[in-house]
Amino acid sequence: MTRHPNDVPLITLYDVPSPSSTPQTWLPNIWRVRLVLNFKRLRYRTEWVEFPDIEQKLTSIGAPPSGVRPDGRPIFTLPVLVDHVRNPHAPVKISHADKIAEYLESAYPARSIFPEGSRALQFIFVHHIERTFARPLLTLMVPISHQQLPPRSQSHFPVSGGDGAAAPAVRSPATWADVKGQFDFLASMLDKNAADGDGVVVMGRELSYADFVLCAMLLWIEKLSPNDVWQQVRMWNEGRWWRLWDRCGQYMEVC
Amino acid sequence: MTRHPNDVPLITLYDVPSPSSTPQTWLPNIWRVRLVLNFKRLRYRTEWVEFPDIEQKLTSIGAPPSGVRPDGRPIFTLPVLVDHVRNPHAPVKISHADKIAEYLESAYPARSIFPEGSRALQFIFVHHIERTFARPLLTLMVPISHQQLPPRSQSHFPVSGGDGAAAPAVRSPATWADVKGQFDFLASMLDKNAADGDGVVVMGRELSYADFVLCAMLLWIEKLSPNDVWQQVRMWNEGRWWRLWDRCGQYMEVC
Repeated sequence: MTRHPNDVPLITLYDVPSPSSTPQTWLPNIWRVRLVLNFKRLRYRTEWVEFPDIEQKLTSIGAPPSGVRPDGRPIFTLPVLVDHVRNPHAPVKISHADKIAEYLESAYPARSIFPEGSRALQFIFVHHIERTFARPLLTLMVPISHQQLPPRSQSHFPVSGGDGAAAPAVRSPATWADVKGQFDFLASMLDKNAADGDGVVVMGRELSYADFVLCAMLLWIEKLSPNDVWQQVRMWNEGRWWRLWDRCGQYMEVC
Repeated sequence: MTRHPNDVPLITLYDVPSPSSTPQTWLPNIWRVRLVLNFKRLRYRTEWVEFPDIEQKLTSIGAPPSGVRPDGRPIFTLPVLVDHVRNPHAPVKISHADKIAEYLESAYPARSIFPEGSRALQFIFVHHIERTFARPLLTLMVPISHQQLPPRSQSHFPVSGGDGAAAPAVRSPATWADVKGQFDFLASMLDKNAADGDGVVVMGRELSYADFVLCAMLLWIEKLSPNDVWQQVRMWNEGRWWRLWDRCGQYMEVC
């Protein structure tokens, strides 16, 4: 049977599967893109690539590197998005979650993720999430993630020291207190919107990219941490994070 | 002659004078408030208080402390704003620039400095300016500021070590390179608004609190650094900072 043209996926998102039997997205930078794709109601399919195969795969499809090592060699990481919609013969290929988000907003402006005039502030927010908010969380979540990968992938996953030695921190009360401190600070900032919003989303009433970046961190905790950890985190700050997760819930489909 | 009631200033801003013969505002946290007052076209007067007199002055007028020392003693700093408009017999007294800005927006919402839904993102921006952007700049500007104070005030100005020992850094190329790096990063973030704005202000088209916070840093450099320093800084990033300074120019009146 010939596939109907409408069945042809026009956007492909490259993602790393979790080790569970059902491929499950778990990397926060890829969740960012998936939430945006679903929010914008774009038709796409996921191509799953194990960590050790990423460089070869991306090289073979001609995807751009996401960065350059000090010695000049290219760095290939996911997410990568390939879009055949605009020109099936010369598809757009983009690396890096933020660049993909900006591309999607530009190519598919309906259901905007960057309300007018907010883009600079949203990217300062993303910078804060990555450089400050996520710092103690990474100490906990990177080893947790590493432990759950298949052996072949473990050596390709960026854990400091490469041996998962930081794993004992998983239950460290001091580090969780640091994580809680970052959530508390963020809640104090988001609370400033209480007068003109629903008290849940970053820009007051409508979901925007900043929410997806934040929810992607929550999803990382939810998908990979011990179950009781997520039960606790989601109730911090009067359940604010659970409400955000719930608000984004309809955009968590994995196509 | 009896003063006409309209001559009675209804809002008082407490500020620290520069050592020049004309009292001149120079502290960036106080410029923030002054820019907001002028932008909102509010009638106010400045009461000048030298550093060594701040605590006594604020205690005498019953202003709240801006913080608490580890040993529990209160910290009194400027700016402080006293507003007799709402209730002449029980004036509102507020310490700390951000709290004053939020109060002014709430009490005088005309000519908004926080477009709806932007408050949380703007305060994350302020956090970035204070904790990251300003860090290398403080290394240079605090000693420059200290050197220009009258001797009586110098011991009350918060220079590390209290002796202005960091002064040789004023012309340090390495530190200025760090400052330039922070300006470059901020420019790269603000450039993201190019598609929906004039390429000058943080939120695209209209001035907001974030611009005043940033412009206050520029004013600190302009007012107190060697003249050629400001000439250079304002031209960085294709003159972006000069254009922002110019855009805020009409709100720099010192009443």
